[in-house]
Amino acid sequence: MSVSTLATVPSVCAPLPVLGRDVTVPLVTGGEVTYAALDYAASAPALQRVWDDVAAYAPYYGSVHRGAGYLSQLSTDLFENARRTVAEFLDCRDGDQVVFTRSTTDSLNLLASALPAGCQVFVFETEHHAALLPWRDARVTVLDAPRGPRQAVETLERALAGRTVSIEGGHGPALVCVTGASNVTGELWPVRELAAAAHAHGARIVLDAAQLAPHHPVSVKDLDVDWVAFSGHKLYAPFGSGVLAGRGDWLREAEPYLAGGGASRKVTRRTDGGVDVEWHDSAARHEAGSPNVIGAYAVASACKALTEAGFDTLVAREQYLVAKVREGLADVPQVRFLSLFGDDAPRVGVLSFVVEGWNSSHFAAALSAEYGIGVRDGLFCAHPLVRTLLGSDPQTQGECGAPEAAPGEKSLNAIRVSFGAGTPDEHVERFVRAVRELVTDGARWNYRTEDGRCVPDTSA
Amino acid sequence: MSVSTLATVPSVCAPLPVLGRDVTVPLVTGGEVTYAALDYAASAPALQRVWDDVAAYAPYYGSVHRGAGYLSQLSTDLFENARRTVAEFLDCRDGDQVVFTRSTTDSLNLLASALPAGCQVFVFETEHHAALLPWRDARVTVLDAPRGPRQAVETLERALAGRTVSIEGGHGPALVCVTGASNVTGELWPVRELAAAAHAHGARIVLDAAQLAPHHPVSVKDLDVDWVAFSGHKLYAPFGSGVLAGRGDWLREAEPYLAGGGASRKVTRRTDGGVDVEWHDSAARHEAGSPNVIGAYAVASACKALTEAGFDTLVAREQYLVAKVREGLADVPQVRFLSLFGDDAPRVGVLSFVVEGWNSSHFAAALSAEYGIGVRDGLFCAHPLVRTLLGSDPQTQGECGAPEAAPGEKSLNAIRVSFGAGTPDEHVERFVRAVRELVTDGARWNYRTEDGRCVPDTSA
Repeated sequence: MSVSTLATVPSVCAPLPVLGRDVTVPLVTGGEVTYAALDYAASAPALQRVWDDVAAYAPYYGSVHRGAGYLSQLSTDLFENARRTVAEFLDCRDGDQVVFTRSTTDSLNLLASALPAGCQVFVFETEHHAALLPWRDARVTVLDAPRGPRQAVETLERALAGRTVSIEGGHGPALVCVTGASNVTGELWPVRELAAAAHAHGARIVLDAAQLAPHHPVSVKDLDVDWVAFSGHKLYAPFGSGVLAGRGDWLREAEPYLAGGGASRKVTRRTDGGVDVEWHDSAARHEAGSPNVIGAYAVASACKALTEAGFDTLVAREQYLVAKVREGLADVPQVRFLSLFGDDAPRVGVLSFVVEGWNSSHFAAALSAEYGIGVRDGLFCAHPLVRTLLGSDPQTQGECGAPEAAPGEKSLNAIRVSFGAGTPDEHVERFVRAVRELVTDGARWNYRTEDGRCVPDTSA
Repeated sequence: MSVSTLATVPSVCAPLPVLGRDVTVPLVTGGEVTYAALDYAASAPALQRVWDDVAAYAPYYGSVHRGAGYLSQLSTDLFENARRTVAEFLDCRDGDQVVFTRSTTDSLNLLASALPAGCQVFVFETEHHAALLPWRDARVTVLDAPRGPRQAVETLERALAGRTVSIEGGHGPALVCVTGASNVTGELWPVRELAAAAHAHGARIVLDAAQLAPHHPVSVKDLDVDWVAFSGHKLYAPFGSGVLAGRGDWLREAEPYLAGGGASRKVTRRTDGGVDVEWHDSAARHEAGSPNVIGAYAVASACKALTEAGFDTLVAREQYLVAKVREGLADVPQVRFLSLFGDDAPRVGVLSFVVEGWNSSHFAAALSAEYGIGVRDGLFCAHPLVRTLLGSDPQTQGECGAPEAAPGEKSLNAIRVSFGAGTPDEHVERFVRAVRELVTDGARWNYRTEDGRCVPDTSA
């Protein structure tokens, strides 16, 4: 199917208005175009509605909690209401806690700090680093990359069944951490089935919904997960707040994640010179310091906006855009999409690929400089997964953030295109056209590596 | 000196424009007034300039670091430039690191996580909880409240000289944590002298500048402190970012504060199934996850705005407002200001007090409901200090965030009024007038306790 044919298919619904939708950027080849933000999986633009809510609230911002003034009380109510909005958005159980963190990474680091003694953690090697690395003192079992949802469940069940039995004959506490949608392939993971497997073996499970929540409804009750983590900045609310929501017991029993005011109920100097502390049992236990009220309010605003837009519509539109990319590039053999579960596996609007004969950084730089398209190149903070998908030798693999091989050399990285609720058809259409032209005609400009970036060579 | 006389003294300079300066709030006695935000020490309104900068940037927000698009590169540059702006604002040494955190509390928790093994921590009991509590596994020596700057230095010197000597005959690493300005009394601490004492005894020192940086210039070089921590939300930039700036050695040698993408340079699966990680050595080591770009940009914007306004002018204006409060209430014997170093000790625009015959929550509620003034009542997340200043029994003392005694009962808490660069004369004048009227005439409304707040009783 050609791009021009596809472009006549009517869009399922209009994209949601986002900030920056009219921003133009210069092209190295001359002129300007509207910027096509196709790196939603890293960070999404703010919804216009989220920005409007923040802008309307900002003059009413006030210190929260013990502030006696009108704006302090308004801000306190708004902050606590944001928790309830998030709990509704995630369809939490009664009694679940909603802790405001700064990001998914922070949320999972918080949960890692709250693991009971002796807890064993199970995580697939396919997770991004935010889910792979925070577990520190816990015994971590890294599971091999499965090649399908069923194999994922079987792999987990086998690992859980093979757990060490304690001297008393029982299993200690265990936690499974799994993504809802891969940040590399966009593929959906069988969360409900993995949760059932975890619980059947006496383990708990945390859902990393960083890539799922912006694209799909997430129901804690329906999926039967113990915790969910997500980031505001991927959910169209880039104001520094994330969320960990779920069961309160481990959180209440843990040492505070941050120690300080707000988390402490009462602090008393002892007669021996030391200090006694009583900590809160609520979410505040892990939120010491003045909370990021604007960030939390922005997250709640995004939750409401997505709910009101309706996920049925949002999912349909996003699948339409995914099809546009897949079908638009189906007859370009030089483009190889990365997939763990197979090309037809259900996915969100996140696709990674390599282009034969191209260095990925070079290709991404040309998309930016010659077409005004923002994608991402690299290993996407999921090094083991990308290496597995590329079939490359880990020892010769590039580093995250380090310069890629020079233009023309073999690529060790990949390119990722990702989109969402704010993406107009034109961005995806331009992307498809650009890929086709670059593959067919090559770049129109020369590029070089500078400060770890591949940039147009303007020295000539 | 009467209030009316003072009000004719010309203001030193105009306040800096802040968001919310025109917000009106309802009075329980009828009508509306512009809100007088006098809780800057908890959280300050955003400078209009900061908001304008954030609003101008927001449409250009993009994913940072490996994003290849124009807005990603712009956002990455802007984020890294924000570090340089903060380093200039703090007059850092070459080679100092600037780590973006979420707040002072977060910054001090980060530093606590980076202490070398066996590090001993020295902290005065007068610190707020953010500085008193984060030290966890370290051996903490809590020093008695000094009654003057000289006594503070002597107390620290004595404690450092009395440190445990190791078997090898030397002292282990030690850290002193001290505030620049008290969040309760506003009094300035002798930071330079304390730093000299710390260094003379082979210890390091971190300056908690949460209350100092918004009011006074802070020079890392001149004060010779090893680290500085401050919060954006007290520095007129309430967008979820704070700062830890200073020596890189302990930070580079420490385990990452947050584990995840961005902090990791290279992650490799080992043949035995485990995972090897190489971490960054730069500030990114402790900033895993997508950074709060808007938050960091807002902090940098505030740093620039304060520098351009000129601290000489800002300090002069604030001292003029402090004098207005002190002189305006000097002939009201029922008002007792809390002071550690004496009534005439240099201070920033932060003053705490109790009113004879009044419960502090009741008084603060009346200031809000009848005058539209937002102050704070409580223990200000500095329980040991406030109890020392009130001379009250710690065992019978109220909890932070818990309801105060009912109106009319003896107060166990205090009231704090605080202001800064955005405060117009009228707010302080209204506060002085309100205190005088309440003391003389009593409240015009009845109040009751509800959900931990003292609120106007509207049931009658």
